[in-house]
Amino acid sequence: MPIKTILWMTFACGLCYGQPADDSKPATTNVMGAEYPRVHADRGVTFRIKAPDAKKVQVRLGQDYDMVRAEDGTWSATIPPQVPGFHYYYLVIDGVQVNDPASEAFYGVGRESSGIEIPETGVDYYDLKDVPHGEVRQFRYYSKVTGTWRRAFVYTPPDYDVNLKARYPVLYLQHGGGEDERGWIVQGRADIILDNLIAAKKAVPMIVVMDKGYAVAAGEKPYEYKQGEPFDMRRLSSLPAFEKVVIDDLIPAIDRRYRTLTDRDHRAMAGLSMGGGQAYDIVLRHPDTFAYAGGFSGVPGGNGGPAIDTKTDFGGVLDRADAFNKRMKLVWFGIGTAEPASMAKGMKGFREAITAAGIRHVYFESEGTSHEWLTWRRDLADFAPRLFR
Amino acid sequence: MPIKTILWMTFACGLCYGQPADDSKPATTNVMGAEYPRVHADRGVTFRIKAPDAKKVQVRLGQDYDMVRAEDGTWSATIPPQVPGFHYYYLVIDGVQVNDPASEAFYGVGRESSGIEIPETGVDYYDLKDVPHGEVRQFRYYSKVTGTWRRAFVYTPPDYDVNLKARYPVLYLQHGGGEDERGWIVQGRADIILDNLIAAKKAVPMIVVMDKGYAVAAGEKPYEYKQGEPFDMRRLSSLPAFEKVVIDDLIPAIDRRYRTLTDRDHRAMAGLSMGGGQAYDIVLRHPDTFAYAGGFSGVPGGNGGPAIDTKTDFGGVLDRADAFNKRMKLVWFGIGTAEPASMAKGMKGFREAITAAGIRHVYFESEGTSHEWLTWRRDLADFAPRLFR
Repeated sequence: MPIKTILWMTFACGLCYGQPADDSKPATTNVMGAEYPRVHADRGVTFRIKAPDAKKVQVRLGQDYDMVRAEDGTWSATIPPQVPGFHYYYLVIDGVQVNDPASEAFYGVGRESSGIEIPETGVDYYDLKDVPHGEVRQFRYYSKVTGTWRRAFVYTPPDYDVNLKARYPVLYLQHGGGEDERGWIVQGRADIILDNLIAAKKAVPMIVVMDKGYAVAAGEKPYEYKQGEPFDMRRLSSLPAFEKVVIDDLIPAIDRRYRTLTDRDHRAMAGLSMGGGQAYDIVLRHPDTFAYAGGFSGVPGGNGGPAIDTKTDFGGVLDRADAFNKRMKLVWFGIGTAEPASMAKGMKGFREAITAAGIRHVYFESEGTSHEWLTWRRDLADFAPRLFR
Repeated sequence: MPIKTILWMTFACGLCYGQPADDSKPATTNVMGAEYPRVHADRGVTFRIKAPDAKKVQVRLGQDYDMVRAEDGTWSATIPPQVPGFHYYYLVIDGVQVNDPASEAFYGVGRESSGIEIPETGVDYYDLKDVPHGEVRQFRYYSKVTGTWRRAFVYTPPDYDVNLKARYPVLYLQHGGGEDERGWIVQGRADIILDNLIAAKKAVPMIVVMDKGYAVAAGEKPYEYKQGEPFDMRRLSSLPAFEKVVIDDLIPAIDRRYRTLTDRDHRAMAGLSMGGGQAYDIVLRHPDTFAYAGGFSGVPGGNGGPAIDTKTDFGGVLDRADAFNKRMKLVWFGIGTAEPASMAKGMKGFREAITAAGIRHVYFESEGTSHEWLTWRRDLADFAPRLFR
């Protein structure tokens, strides 16, 4: 018979609208088949949603933009040109911030959020290309520190399953506050960036481990929010427990399961925002374990906190610059030039302290980007090629 | 120094509420730290959201339940006991269906949706346990049929990276209409089910490949929705192209990349709903490629369509029962006893036709469940142990 393709599921579609007669295209971050939001050639974006009974609808992307109601109950707004890269956004319907049903969901800012990718002209290092692709693996391991099974994602390079005798260096790569272990793949495209760098021989093949940067020690009470209090990411991240997880549980589990190079010269740690602070805290307290450190819009001391004291912090390891410079192969940190003053202040304080102490380092600026994923993609693309050489 | 854990990100939390003084617990499907929705011992669920300016707020879970506004602008509702397992749900705010910001997001029904897991007492085959865990790998392959890179998820069993000489049978496992290649892991817990079955020696170690069940042939125009028309999953799934992708691109790519057993006796295909129909269509048209077929709430002819004609459909392969029964190792299909009549009708027609034709088969009923993930978890737990024996 001709194949019988029968009505499996026919459902009314709230995402379906006619196409405008212009050069705009559906955002690549839309769910399959959704025509809106649409990105224009000038990087402006048109959003649309059907909400006949709503009194007020807005788009929240950096700021709030009012949407305008058409007679059929469809609300729409075209917002000004946006910076390229990935941005979280929301709709606000009668005062409630919700996701756009037309967008994929991205875990960020402590919840599933809508996101939009604005194309960056002339740049393809984070585009999926016809190069050998590595894999991203869901890896479960038991943590004695937390008394729970934990999940990390592990990027293995394209030749991992071909060169079965080869062993690889490892980059531990952390997400930011309010994100989790999914962020670097889903929002950051870390696997695609590594595939492209490795194919171009700009980076050596490496394993990348992305864990969840939150941990509560077994027997300790998890952080509980109280009604009306601000959400304190610092208490959720619980660095002392996370540090123990990384050192005592994660690294040994990774070295058991994967064909890693297990000496310090083949182990790096980096992270973004909160994860950058965590990476530096952990590397500088365990210099026998890591030889490379990266802080992407995040450094020890935090973005709003006091600068570090290089004489006394981290057991004074930064106070012996000659020894430190000999031993630590890379101290890298970067920030977007459009980041808020509070973020820039923390980075500046760290940079000045490190410079005054005579610590060799690389400082990187992402032109025109804020505290967002394009900054961190650029960071990774500059950082990864410097590793394990 | 003591570790400086500074205010990385402090943001007001819309998910933060006080805990009720009862035995309810936050749903395991909530985002980290969200106290609501809470599941009660009787499987009732309390939902809550802050929406001071909304006029009407409802929970949509199978039906619509009105939420009640408290003085502080918080709306809440406790809904009656729910069937165990995973259910999609939404909030309806002033008439607009949106996700609950307190829920993880799950791609289903053609969009990212909220979901809630209702615990099933005395059942642990889909719980994460202290057994050896396989991996789930993101696998990219190029399809000549579609002219695009495609993504599948591949479950490799716990000993895959230990027994480096071993080769494994492969189950191709498809999602339903409106879902995608993420469904079987995120909603279905297929990896956990397989880990547990393999640890208990109830199933043989196998590779499971989960691809996206939609495909548009290169050069063909993708299905575009027209405003006001119903969403036609049939046109999106585009079976002829998907069938070619599976046979010409996916299977060869999997057999190249993974250590598979490549004969028909070690290859199965199954799927749920739309994916069940696809699996049967593909297996019955390619009996030299597959020896096992599974339809979970989905069979050829579809749930609303006419029954198959066993004399003429699929080149008449079902009309020669003796030869078919000798060659095809398993014909398995199942349905939930609480599924809608339209679903039950398609399954009944298929079952009657298969029975009348003398085709040996296994028919399975999931007691009390509808067209939903607990039905399909149970299906997989009954189906997988019968494979590759």
